[in-house]
Amino acid sequence: MRSVVIINTGTEILLGDVADAHLAFIAREIFQFGLQVEEQRIIPDGAAIGVAIRDVFARAEIVFVTGGLGPTTDDVTREIVAELLQLELIEDTTVRAAIRDRLSIRHIPVTKRVWRQAQVPVGAEILPNEGGTAPGLYLPPNVSSAVASPHLFLLPGPPRELQPIFRQSVAPILRRITAGLHPPAMRKFQLAVMGESIVEKKLGAKILAIPGIELGYRSRPGEVEVRVSGRPEAVEAAERIIQSELADAIFTTEDETLAAVVVRLLSKQGETLAVAESCTGGLLAHQVTDVPGASKVFLGGYVTYSNEEKIRALGVAASSIERFGAVSEEVALEMAEGTRRGAQATHSIATTGIAGPSGGTVEKPVGTAFMAISSANYAPICRKFFLPSDRETFKQLLAQNAFDLLRRRLLA
Amino acid sequence: MRSVVIINTGTEILLGDVADAHLAFIAREIFQFGLQVEEQRIIPDGAAIGVAIRDVFARAEIVFVTGGLGPTTDDVTREIVAELLQLELIEDTTVRAAIRDRLSIRHIPVTKRVWRQAQVPVGAEILPNEGGTAPGLYLPPNVSSAVASPHLFLLPGPPRELQPIFRQSVAPILRRITAGLHPPAMRKFQLAVMGESIVEKKLGAKILAIPGIELGYRSRPGEVEVRVSGRPEAVEAAERIIQSELADAIFTTEDETLAAVVVRLLSKQGETLAVAESCTGGLLAHQVTDVPGASKVFLGGYVTYSNEEKIRALGVAASSIERFGAVSEEVALEMAEGTRRGAQATHSIATTGIAGPSGGTVEKPVGTAFMAISSANYAPICRKFFLPSDRETFKQLLAQNAFDLLRRRLLA
Repeated sequence: MRSVVIINTGTEILLGDVADAHLAFIAREIFQFGLQVEEQRIIPDGAAIGVAIRDVFARAEIVFVTGGLGPTTDDVTREIVAELLQLELIEDTTVRAAIRDRLSIRHIPVTKRVWRQAQVPVGAEILPNEGGTAPGLYLPPNVSSAVASPHLFLLPGPPRELQPIFRQSVAPILRRITAGLHPPAMRKFQLAVMGESIVEKKLGAKILAIPGIELGYRSRPGEVEVRVSGRPEAVEAAERIIQSELADAIFTTEDETLAAVVVRLLSKQGETLAVAESCTGGLLAHQVTDVPGASKVFLGGYVTYSNEEKIRALGVAASSIERFGAVSEEVALEMAEGTRRGAQATHSIATTGIAGPSGGTVEKPVGTAFMAISSANYAPICRKFFLPSDRETFKQLLAQNAFDLLRRRLLA
Repeated sequence: MRSVVIINTGTEILLGDVADAHLAFIAREIFQFGLQVEEQRIIPDGAAIGVAIRDVFARAEIVFVTGGLGPTTDDVTREIVAELLQLELIEDTTVRAAIRDRLSIRHIPVTKRVWRQAQVPVGAEILPNEGGTAPGLYLPPNVSSAVASPHLFLLPGPPRELQPIFRQSVAPILRRITAGLHPPAMRKFQLAVMGESIVEKKLGAKILAIPGIELGYRSRPGEVEVRVSGRPEAVEAAERIIQSELADAIFTTEDETLAAVVVRLLSKQGETLAVAESCTGGLLAHQVTDVPGASKVFLGGYVTYSNEEKIRALGVAASSIERFGAVSEEVALEMAEGTRRGAQATHSIATTGIAGPSGGTVEKPVGTAFMAISSANYAPICRKFFLPSDRETFKQLLAQNAFDLLRRRLLA
């Protein structure tokens, strides 16, 4: 694996005002060439770029520098690189003409500073920029006889300029550079309703015993992604282990949400869903309706926060609430049944619980929840949960549990 | 200005699968102490952390390391830092007890690996983690007699663990460290339903004419944050400009969502809310119920995706749907009225529209939406929108518009 480093200039990113968009874009683009980003540095606009480049020159094989190529006073990437590599900057007539044309079409007055963008270090390849005035630059390894250097790409900062340049001009160079490398195979598995530590206990040692495998995890409330990469045979061996240990919990091997999987399964089976939410507060409906095509399977949802609404809208018996409390198995089941019958859906999910921070009791502390599923052709089920966390995580965890239980039912 | 560096471990970030959330959070939190991030490095999980830390030790005064404190094999931050500083790791009985309690409450089986998280380098201060098992650690400058070191904070990777630790334990330490510095004044203004370019056009030139002012923007769907900092007099002058140009659009000068502002206003006025959602699909209810205390003002919500549900649950006339279509002013108003009457709420919001990607027509293309508000003591209103975007952004934009219109009504 070649060592790839991204150096990102951007004071506004360091202030927390703008999110960096380059790392995710470049990482995904270079994966096809068997390349992986080893490090990203975000540094201020201006002179800091010199220190960072010098720092990584020795150990990186491919360096992408983004930003600092424009016309303003803190755009100094081009000049600092030329100085570091002891290369002369010469004005390129083609770039100058492109800048002149671009500005005149847009009736933008030409200032003296603009022409700095036509300066090119001797030996650099120009990467044309159709979305702006500053072209990208590629400096091949050891372009200067004075200083050793890696493959060096200087790219403009705005994503809408960088991304087309990358696809049109950088990708072909990377293909040439990496010819002969064998890009690694990669597979990912999204597991529902599992903690990272349990997944690692089941898989970690067994998978890491495979020579040359790389194993990674990513957790979000209610799900873990397991990712394996390496030689194709190693990845296949890892996949066999994951399938044999955790097949039930794998809800997808693609980039899709658990709600999207549920929508897909319902859609395939020509079935429909309605939901009745107390403590998840609309999150089930929101996640389902984020899926394109949800309108085919999702009939509707009820967010019944008050007892009156549970009685009026879902047909829960007032006596059940009085006797067992709104947070109870009985009420969850009545909510689910009432919703499914009312909406004439194939399946319904109901949630009721105590999200906190207040409202808990000794018997039913904050984090207590009941989730019920009612289906046309199966007996209803209800599960009790205890998920003490902040409100948002509580809602997420219960939603993931609900979708996963329905998913398993749809696959049964 | 002290030199602050963030080192972020995260193979999944370098692979482009997850966006880094720490830089923006930390940058904004430390601003109040007059601190600014000078550099962020994102490096892989595992041994690379040693190289990065050694690299920045010499020139940084405050270093935040995020990630690598968990129980898995690639979590090695604690061990590598102890080795670098030649500090012994000793199990802390308080941390061990906290881990044991946390796991036993959740009925999570205890594995051997878990106890690594109770290891603490000699001289480190423990920063308790209420959202997870691994505590944060603070190592004061030169904590080891063997190796010179800066202020060093080791923090867990998941944002929902890191953020509370930062606010509860890191901020007080930073306040102590920076006592005597004169932090700049800072004010922020969250503006509803405005694009960044319009805000900049109204404010940019006027504010930047104030000597010594710094101006920043941050956009999210349906809102823009304007931030000004500098000498107190300069910030006051900027505030006067913002208030005179855009007072109506400012929904808060704190860190709170527009939904939270609506819940606060309703609560103060002893009023209640119900919602009927077609195209926002549960997002209104979800955002309202994310606010602690929402149960006092939020009676319930209906997500009526199908026409049948609009008729059955909300009392919309079948003839209105037939004559005007489900996406129409008439149906939006009937949804709002039916919901408010049914739930006996003071106010109701209704949405109906075409989120896409399919379902658009020439007359009502994807992105068309109607939003109505019905209130006990005012005439109902309905607004038409055209918000062509992806499904999620469409839902967000319409939700922000709905909450902002209700906010203005509550303030009228």
